[in-house]
Amino acid sequence: MASSTPLRALSIDNINPHVKTAKYAVRGELAVRSEKYRAQLAKGDKGGLPFDTVIAANIGNPQQLDQKPITFFRQVASILENPELLEKENVLTGSLGYKPDVVERAKKLLKDVKSVGAYSQSQGAPGIRDSVAKFIERRDGYPADPSNIYLSAGASSGVNTLLHIICSKPESGILIPIPQYPLYTATLAVLDARCVPYYLDEGHSWGTDLSAIRNAYDKAIAEGTDVKAIVIINPGNPTGASLPAEDIKSVLEFAAEKKLVVIADEVYQTNVFVGEFLSFKKGLRDLQKAIPEKFDNIELVSLHSVSKGMVGECGHRGGYFELVGFDPEVAAEIYKFISIQLCPPVIGQCIVEMMVNPPKEGEPSYELYKAEYDGIFEGLKKRAYALYEAFGQMEGVHCQTPAGSMYLFPTITIPAKAIEQAKKEGRQPDEFYCFRMLDATGVCVVAGSGFGQKEGTLHFRTTFLAPGTDWVGRIVKFHKEFMDEFRD
Amino acid sequence: MASSTPLRALSIDNINPHVKTAKYAVRGELAVRSEKYRAQLAKGDKGGLPFDTVIAANIGNPQQLDQKPITFFRQVASILENPELLEKENVLTGSLGYKPDVVERAKKLLKDVKSVGAYSQSQGAPGIRDSVAKFIERRDGYPADPSNIYLSAGASSGVNTLLHIICSKPESGILIPIPQYPLYTATLAVLDARCVPYYLDEGHSWGTDLSAIRNAYDKAIAEGTDVKAIVIINPGNPTGASLPAEDIKSVLEFAAEKKLVVIADEVYQTNVFVGEFLSFKKGLRDLQKAIPEKFDNIELVSLHSVSKGMVGECGHRGGYFELVGFDPEVAAEIYKFISIQLCPPVIGQCIVEMMVNPPKEGEPSYELYKAEYDGIFEGLKKRAYALYEAFGQMEGVHCQTPAGSMYLFPTITIPAKAIEQAKKEGRQPDEFYCFRMLDATGVCVVAGSGFGQKEGTLHFRTTFLAPGTDWVGRIVKFHKEFMDEFRD
Repeated sequence: MASSTPLRALSIDNINPHVKTAKYAVRGELAVRSEKYRAQLAKGDKGGLPFDTVIAANIGNPQQLDQKPITFFRQVASILENPELLEKENVLTGSLGYKPDVVERAKKLLKDVKSVGAYSQSQGAPGIRDSVAKFIERRDGYPADPSNIYLSAGASSGVNTLLHIICSKPESGILIPIPQYPLYTATLAVLDARCVPYYLDEGHSWGTDLSAIRNAYDKAIAEGTDVKAIVIINPGNPTGASLPAEDIKSVLEFAAEKKLVVIADEVYQTNVFVGEFLSFKKGLRDLQKAIPEKFDNIELVSLHSVSKGMVGECGHRGGYFELVGFDPEVAAEIYKFISIQLCPPVIGQCIVEMMVNPPKEGEPSYELYKAEYDGIFEGLKKRAYALYEAFGQMEGVHCQTPAGSMYLFPTITIPAKAIEQAKKEGRQPDEFYCFRMLDATGVCVVAGSGFGQKEGTLHFRTTFLAPGTDWVGRIVKFHKEFMDEFRD
Repeated sequence: MASSTPLRALSIDNINPHVKTAKYAVRGELAVRSEKYRAQLAKGDKGGLPFDTVIAANIGNPQQLDQKPITFFRQVASILENPELLEKENVLTGSLGYKPDVVERAKKLLKDVKSVGAYSQSQGAPGIRDSVAKFIERRDGYPADPSNIYLSAGASSGVNTLLHIICSKPESGILIPIPQYPLYTATLAVLDARCVPYYLDEGHSWGTDLSAIRNAYDKAIAEGTDVKAIVIINPGNPTGASLPAEDIKSVLEFAAEKKLVVIADEVYQTNVFVGEFLSFKKGLRDLQKAIPEKFDNIELVSLHSVSKGMVGECGHRGGYFELVGFDPEVAAEIYKFISIQLCPPVIGQCIVEMMVNPPKEGEPSYELYKAEYDGIFEGLKKRAYALYEAFGQMEGVHCQTPAGSMYLFPTITIPAKAIEQAKKEGRQPDEFYCFRMLDATGVCVVAGSGFGQKEGTLHFRTTFLAPGTDWVGRIVKFHKEFMDEFRD
């Protein structure tokens, strides 16, 4: 065999170039190194590491960080997995302390899905889609149709579906907020479609800035991009923002003007500390009531998930999206597309049902549910503010007031010498900073460059899920030492 | 607004044309109509339908058809969902009758994943990948490396990943057996890559025919296709074939000669009635031992799933693939690609672990596990042969002896008048036949054209999962009436 003949069929030079282009920093090199440290420590081998624990503040994964699952959800799920427990109802409600509404809910869900081991309809079990539609009606005060609800394996899978349908050619473009959750740019890269970035307004609590959106749109059109949709992440990831009603209204107006599909990523809708969550669906219905001729033909899709909120059931891969105003022929193609992968995980579908239809006041499991839910909410809020205050003490660090989601996204200003050193090591300056932080503290965060940021600015994203405050102290100490090391 | 201006951003004319091209008959129009009938009957509204029940023989969904899940799996899963049950170990092992190995396995899996509500590593929990590697070693007698195991949301998701990596341009081609499970052609259509069809040999129990593969390859190369890989489904879907060692060897030889990635879809590896399952991995390692210089650089990927076999846990969306001989840089791109969707469902990962590491002889749960497993196996075999015999009585119907998987794929010969009528209704002849069968009997099968078949031949695929024999009688009766109606 000549030495120039490749040994294998596949090499980095001949696989799908669009997959290669995709970037997904949330689980990138930093995360991989942090897992290596974690494995090393688990073996009892400190091997010179200056910390005893690894803190995964890079990813919103509450139950990996000791958040307890909500009891009602898991009691029901245990019966769904083993329906023979229903034949021992007296044991459940006696020795095991399952409340009657747990048993009742399990029976209802088993009626909906027959078995959690059976495929459901591609779009999700009809009974569960009914529950989702009722939840949306209660939330927004406007009707929702179960036939427009599509259950999915987490919101990520829903986004993947929608971008596959919308992007029809290399010139197809989607307006994406920057900073953004990199699922969007990664999926667009795989699809060989264009990301049309619009910058969020850090000075105004990371809100949407209509003039920035308009400029991004105009620039893209001038470059020959066929702009088809606009993505909004509200509450924000990585920004932690919670959009006011005016921002939502102005985005909808712009979408109506330019005929854009609105993709509202609303997975953090219950993680709101400031003001109240307003859904894009409600915003749209309000506008349609007021000025139907202008807004009646908008296409909106809203995504939700069991991974976030106080539910935090990431590992169950449950979520849904609702289509509003879509052409039935397009919806049929969406249905076919999701059919190829058969159906979303059925136990995840059941968790979606419980998320949207939790125990109600007066029901036996309500009190515990409420206490657990509120406890998680308050814990997150408290930790968000503690972290925010710590950032306030750090030289060159500035952070918006916590408002929602599970993240803070502070700006950092680091000395020129540090930027020089980063260059030498072939890294972005913020990435360099984050690697230094991980190596010094065991705390894993994600560099702002993984989400996008304005030229010349540097950030990092951290969750505020990790319990305790020790790790916050580690960051403060590291930052001081880092600044001292590189100070001009 | 001018009447020529489209109302919406998206229409059937401007969405992704590659999604539109994709076909997925298993959940297509026939399945949708059968669901309509089922819903109608569930409401107690017979409305003139000449049957009382709908039989979903179109899809391998055992637990929708009353196959009982394996007790051990579900008892463990119930504890995974509600680990507080472990605090009541005496209740479990006392009143509930959970055996000690159930409790032990749940503890082991919880140690592996921490919580089934937490994201795992993108590739799957390390402890579970270890179990999979050990299973492969036991099965094949050759080592397997956990770092080459990728857990997935069913095998479908694994196939989607691999085709995304391999197909790099519109000229990329993959050799696909015809008839095939339409996941392959649908995914290739979405990716805008080429299906290079090779026909299986119906006359030889639907085995692979090397000359057919060679001709298909040569023809594709002549047309400018860059053929990158060959897919084999063994045991076969829809054919029900079980490949002999010679077929496996000849495919591997061909792949080595042409430098093709071998994609072995082995999800039915325990559904084998004739002979013994031989994995492509073992086939490859045997050849590598004998003639290393020829086979050492083959890239093989083998897929497995919890949806099939005697496990039948489709709704849990669990599976894995093993990479053999892949370039590490390519594997890193696979890792990044799957990371974008975060991780496969964690409870599904746990079911994978139990599938590959079930109770062993001498362990407390073994006896029941063995009885359930064998009962399902014998039931499937019995029904396969009953159906096969029924086909033997039907005019113009010919079927290969059942050998494996969950399907039979008989040839049908129907009168010219029926073919004419199909044409009038704008349908393929076999599709027309299947619609007539559904309307007359409530039995939903899939037309051969949904899987591909030799020009001029007609088939349908039916599972043999549905309990009882009444539905088989319905098919026999329908077929006679259909032939009588259209006889020349």
